[in-house]
Amino acid sequence: MASAFELGPTVGFIGAGQLARMSAAPAAALGIGFSVLANSGEEPAALVSSNVTIGSKDDPKTVQAFAQSCDVVTFDHELLTPEVMQALEESGVPYYPKAAAVVYAQDKLLMRQALTNLGIPCPQWAHIESEADAHEFASRVGYPFILKTSRGGYDGKGVWIVRDANAAAQVLAEPLPQGSAWLAEEFIPFERELSAQIARSPSNQCVAYPVVQTTQRDGICAEVISPAPALDPRRAERAQEIALRISRELDVVGMLAVELFDTGTDIVVNELAMRPHNSGHWSIEGAVTSQFENHLRAVLDLPLGAPHAVAPWSVMSNILGGDVGDLYSAYRHVFARDPGLYVHLYGKVVKPGRKVGHVTAVGSDLTDLQHRAAHATAYFSGEINE
Amino acid sequence: MASAFELGPTVGFIGAGQLARMSAAPAAALGIGFSVLANSGEEPAALVSSNVTIGSKDDPKTVQAFAQSCDVVTFDHELLTPEVMQALEESGVPYYPKAAAVVYAQDKLLMRQALTNLGIPCPQWAHIESEADAHEFASRVGYPFILKTSRGGYDGKGVWIVRDANAAAQVLAEPLPQGSAWLAEEFIPFERELSAQIARSPSNQCVAYPVVQTTQRDGICAEVISPAPALDPRRAERAQEIALRISRELDVVGMLAVELFDTGTDIVVNELAMRPHNSGHWSIEGAVTSQFENHLRAVLDLPLGAPHAVAPWSVMSNILGGDVGDLYSAYRHVFARDPGLYVHLYGKVVKPGRKVGHVTAVGSDLTDLQHRAAHATAYFSGEINE
Repeated sequence: MASAFELGPTVGFIGAGQLARMSAAPAAALGIGFSVLANSGEEPAALVSSNVTIGSKDDPKTVQAFAQSCDVVTFDHELLTPEVMQALEESGVPYYPKAAAVVYAQDKLLMRQALTNLGIPCPQWAHIESEADAHEFASRVGYPFILKTSRGGYDGKGVWIVRDANAAAQVLAEPLPQGSAWLAEEFIPFERELSAQIARSPSNQCVAYPVVQTTQRDGICAEVISPAPALDPRRAERAQEIALRISRELDVVGMLAVELFDTGTDIVVNELAMRPHNSGHWSIEGAVTSQFENHLRAVLDLPLGAPHAVAPWSVMSNILGGDVGDLYSAYRHVFARDPGLYVHLYGKVVKPGRKVGHVTAVGSDLTDLQHRAAHATAYFSGEINE
Repeated sequence: MASAFELGPTVGFIGAGQLARMSAAPAAALGIGFSVLANSGEEPAALVSSNVTIGSKDDPKTVQAFAQSCDVVTFDHELLTPEVMQALEESGVPYYPKAAAVVYAQDKLLMRQALTNLGIPCPQWAHIESEADAHEFASRVGYPFILKTSRGGYDGKGVWIVRDANAAAQVLAEPLPQGSAWLAEEFIPFERELSAQIARSPSNQCVAYPVVQTTQRDGICAEVISPAPALDPRRAERAQEIALRISRELDVVGMLAVELFDTGTDIVVNELAMRPHNSGHWSIEGAVTSQFENHLRAVLDLPLGAPHAVAPWSVMSNILGGDVGDLYSAYRHVFARDPGLYVHLYGKVVKPGRKVGHVTAVGSDLTDLQHRAAHATAYFSGEINE
């Protein structure tokens, strides 16, 4: 639906978390409409949008009606049911990424099958339907190995490290999310994790962001360094080529994040995300065009913006909820100590361990940037450090 | 009024033009509430705010009720009536800048008196109440000289260049806006115009942005270069000192822009603006902390962000309405030609000569940046250039 008085088209987000929230700023700059389908008016993106539909993303009729109020639809997460994807398809409104692509971000088993068919490096893996399958897999790759639910896991949930047959049996006794299967993966003794981000438009224009290093704590992304320090340029290029190939072969439109294990000698694909991703938050201030703006440009089939960095280094550190509910009061200290720091708070209720914001430091001294970002995030979480 | 679930405070903007609109992004990043008092839901900032009050900024009761729904109030222009400023004062809600400061941005005659009392360099000036006064002024400074209405002028309106006694008589026969007087000023044969911006908090913390060069066409800002090219560092420092002194002496809180004439040998003050200003739009991408974020931080009395540039040069060029109503369709060309350009469209109806957006180019080759910015703005206005 074209907006009033010759504004640009309206992009609708299904889901109103921080990814949709951080898309509001580039939408305003571009002069386009921005609307969100939210569970409540207090979700992060609902708080900053003039155009909020309250409803369930799991209800096909709600999603279809929402889509028909927009010119193009996208998601701030991939956890949509097949019925909802079908309703979107039938709405007649363009939506990206398409169901045929999203399924590879929703289902890790399908993702492994597809990437293996493409010859893209993955850990050894197997579909596990019984303890006998797990035993057979262990006999090939040894213990420990990884057991995952093919669907529904996030932030380290739905993933187990299995150290013996007994542990495997225990995990396999856990309930599986609906439509989910068990996936076994070789344990990769990686040196570090990397993320390669691509923006791709329906016209097949692609831009590749610098490959970044991500550090997880307790399964949650804690720190991102852009570009990944001391990464062999050939391996960086290989990571970008893998991500480009995946985006084209799976017909991903919008942002794609390919999470990779760097084993020290090679890289293998860990997971895919088809949306703006935590590993790209640094790009808001650290790149010419942020991942959020390029996601919008991509789903609108506009020419994409330059993805390159504006400074030698960017460090992004997530703010995890701590004991202090009032994040705002931390500004007095954080800003007085560091007038060059970028802070994003998402408007979320603070709960221990929950991602409630992030900080980014951009500059030329990596050690200094890491220290500054870590100090601020610790302070927001209630730790007072020197 | 504190917002729900421990969000930060809510900053309310009286006025919902592009200056309020561009404040929405840093408000979202800071995790604070952002509300606007707008004439209609189709004003630039109303289009991007979740919290819009429709009402007249000229009605004291409306403004008072709006203020009482916010934690702190500020303006996106200074054209408020004394009755409205009084209503704000009586609301009990902090608002910035204060009436006692704003009056110097509202009334150019009071501004000249105050700056002259402070010994700050101004053109020669006089309060004109009759043709005889004008004649007397001309006998001191010669023709041409400038006649201005002390209140209500903007973007070149309310300003006349007077070339002889006859012309002066004609201008003085024009109707004066309410509460306005005639101000005569010496015609300064300036080489160029400069702008010095300061952010100042109630705690008297100040930060000074780089001094920029502004170029007007038909009385409307067309191009801003940051920093002003080939500006003697001592003159730049003097401009910053003048702006700092004005902000402190007049007790300005928030952003202050001091527009200056550079005569080649000295600088004199032209006008003051007590809000984010067109001469600071470059700071969104070109400075560590934008003028919009520092205005918010200032009125919240938070420590201010670093104002320095992130690259050697930034060039901002205003998009003026042309013959083409549909700005969005220009993106295909503009973005394909220049993936590194920053574009802001304000969601305004296009009218010839109206400011409907701006572009910014940031980098190290000034000539290239100027060319890129000029090409894009011309294209948005309907001119096709090589």
